[in-house]
Amino acid sequence: MVAKTSIYEPLTVKTLPERLGRVSSLEKRLGADTGQWQCKEVGDGNLNLVFIVSSPQGEVIVKQALPYVRLVGDSWPLPLKRAFFEYQALVRQAERAPGMVPQIYHFDEDQAIIVMEFFSPHIILRQKLMACERVEGLAEALGTFLARTIFRGSDLSMETAKRKRDVALFVDSVEINDITETLVFSDPYFNAERNHHTPGLDSVVAQLRADIDLKVEAHHLKAKFANNGETMLHGDFHTGSIMVTETDTKIIDPEFVLYGPMGFDIGMLLGNFWMAYFAQAGHGNDASYRAWILEVTEEIWDNFVSEFSHLWRTERTGMLYEDILFEGQPHATERALKQRLADIWEDMLGFAGVEMIRRTLSLAHIAENDTIKDEALRAQCEARGLDLGRQLVLNRACIGDISQVTDLAKQINKGSSL
Amino acid sequence: MVAKTSIYEPLTVKTLPERLGRVSSLEKRLGADTGQWQCKEVGDGNLNLVFIVSSPQGEVIVKQALPYVRLVGDSWPLPLKRAFFEYQALVRQAERAPGMVPQIYHFDEDQAIIVMEFFSPHIILRQKLMACERVEGLAEALGTFLARTIFRGSDLSMETAKRKRDVALFVDSVEINDITETLVFSDPYFNAERNHHTPGLDSVVAQLRADIDLKVEAHHLKAKFANNGETMLHGDFHTGSIMVTETDTKIIDPEFVLYGPMGFDIGMLLGNFWMAYFAQAGHGNDASYRAWILEVTEEIWDNFVSEFSHLWRTERTGMLYEDILFEGQPHATERALKQRLADIWEDMLGFAGVEMIRRTLSLAHIAENDTIKDEALRAQCEARGLDLGRQLVLNRACIGDISQVTDLAKQINKGSSL
Repeated sequence: MVAKTSIYEPLTVKTLPERLGRVSSLEKRLGADTGQWQCKEVGDGNLNLVFIVSSPQGEVIVKQALPYVRLVGDSWPLPLKRAFFEYQALVRQAERAPGMVPQIYHFDEDQAIIVMEFFSPHIILRQKLMACERVEGLAEALGTFLARTIFRGSDLSMETAKRKRDVALFVDSVEINDITETLVFSDPYFNAERNHHTPGLDSVVAQLRADIDLKVEAHHLKAKFANNGETMLHGDFHTGSIMVTETDTKIIDPEFVLYGPMGFDIGMLLGNFWMAYFAQAGHGNDASYRAWILEVTEEIWDNFVSEFSHLWRTERTGMLYEDILFEGQPHATERALKQRLADIWEDMLGFAGVEMIRRTLSLAHIAENDTIKDEALRAQCEARGLDLGRQLVLNRACIGDISQVTDLAKQINKGSSL
Repeated sequence: MVAKTSIYEPLTVKTLPERLGRVSSLEKRLGADTGQWQCKEVGDGNLNLVFIVSSPQGEVIVKQALPYVRLVGDSWPLPLKRAFFEYQALVRQAERAPGMVPQIYHFDEDQAIIVMEFFSPHIILRQKLMACERVEGLAEALGTFLARTIFRGSDLSMETAKRKRDVALFVDSVEINDITETLVFSDPYFNAERNHHTPGLDSVVAQLRADIDLKVEAHHLKAKFANNGETMLHGDFHTGSIMVTETDTKIIDPEFVLYGPMGFDIGMLLGNFWMAYFAQAGHGNDASYRAWILEVTEEIWDNFVSEFSHLWRTERTGMLYEDILFEGQPHATERALKQRLADIWEDMLGFAGVEMIRRTLSLAHIAENDTIKDEALRAQCEARGLDLGRQLVLNRACIGDISQVTDLAKQINKGSSL
């Protein structure tokens, strides 16, 4: 272990080799000769410094939190302890869904630095979707990851005292959760300072802000997000937190980790896929690729249900729906499973809906839309996302299954629901 | 301040004056001459030592946690830190509902001792109900206390970071919460070791344990209790935690404090009133007093709704249903209020139902039934409670208002629903 400087200092490509050169786990991977280390800053996210450090021997990722929101600048301070929460989340995800998240080589809490596995030649899934490239096994990997982390981080599986310790641990991430509470659930619904939207959407936005039904429901969902600590969530599970090759899928960046409702991660993910679907008009506009995106959403949900059900039947070791209550009554726990899945389904649709709305009207938009240069076309793609988003929030209790969402998305994409 | 002995030692009537004699806040209330102090151990609850300490100058209550469950003995250890949680809860309740809980004079964390206001000539409400004595203003006091603590301990009112610190604080009360999770939500539904019931109930109990609908719903409620941290609850809000005179009502003993669903405290309370109603057959059996009990339940709910609505309209300073989203749309927040009250109502009925069932079949029963010597009569009273409890759990989504519960209780009490 290297002696830590206790005073936080951001890394640079120049200081990195010297500062991390004597960390044994890095030396093992990159070699002791730091003169051979190559550093590249690649942080394209909204919050952190990210370096790829390579040597003839290997490659690692060095991620360091900055004391402010990178996207906005130092006018928006953000505590460094989010690196600690990300580290804790990665450890738990690796236990619950092995092989899906980067292996950690080194963690320095004072410097808010995580050194971890570099996934190569993986690229961010969002880029892949814009390039109209398919990923084999994507839906299975994502659905399974979601089911495993959601089930195994909950009272369905964990020892109660351990889960409660984790609730206490992660609820301390106040500032990070505040970003979601504010940007996802509140800002889009009034004229908030950090909002921005494509000019062509003015009338749609005015309509939406007058829409009392929608705003009230968005806040019921906010209450659920803030209060229903059902499981440990990734917390920022969109297509920018997923890295892929043609055949491999990995999950990164769980610094928004929190205890929250089971439907949240899946909802955010599917919402991003549905937006990517509408954005296809600006990216190749290939009918079969568009159809593939919708197939992926259906398969993610199906895989989630299938793996969650499997874990329910084989790993229900927590304090909920205890087997001892239902001896000789296996159909009872099957019924309970169906009811819990129905709750997750409804919440999922609602969270997908608010995600689609906030990614169009609030601070952070999606690259799929941002890169559409034709402003009128972009507005059209975004309006379709808003339309589906609104319908999912308002009608989430009466949408029966995922094929209905597919049909609705197709209908909206034809312009028939606008 | 007195020098603390850091090693925990239970108080006795003999050691108390010496051990607490130099605590300045006690000296102020009882005088410095500890020779004049009189101590009486009056703990009739399930968990703690409770002393009344009096002198010519005044009286105080000294409550000390024991390292085990008093009702069961040292075979069931229970951490002393519950005194710390009780102290923290009392401080918050006093802020949120002034004048309703005992004032704290002294707290010693190491010794798990709280010295507090002695309510005199108050007696436990449960005793009053057995004596068929009315309490003026009871429903208003209870409904208001519930609304104030439930609203002001939630994200509707509190600063988010502060609420999250409190969630982390109270979620550490693992062993105390485990008692509720186990005794209320699981034990009644299988042949648990600590269970006991009146022999005449054997066939009803067998029926109930075969009742899959009921058991699954009880566990949906358990999941809600364990995961939906909507507000700071009293956690053990039955008629044994309420002290009354003919005209005054006070709340004590919040050591089961936790962040949980808004409907829990009210449900537990009304469940206990409904059981007291059925138990009247063994206590005076005065039709007008029976009717008064049901009136009280209706008024508690009405007062709760009225005060909660008032706070919603005047104190909604938290992050949920923010006014800025609804400028010029006051009917929107009124609708949100109605929807939240409907959720609380439904949860309340469910929690009332499981409370009635567990107080008949699990470890801790109620004095109103235990004191009915005629075993057949006791079984009849208890069976009626089980009947109503089951119906509340199963039909909670379709019971429209509190008068319907009153009608149902009356019908069951006539024997027409058994």
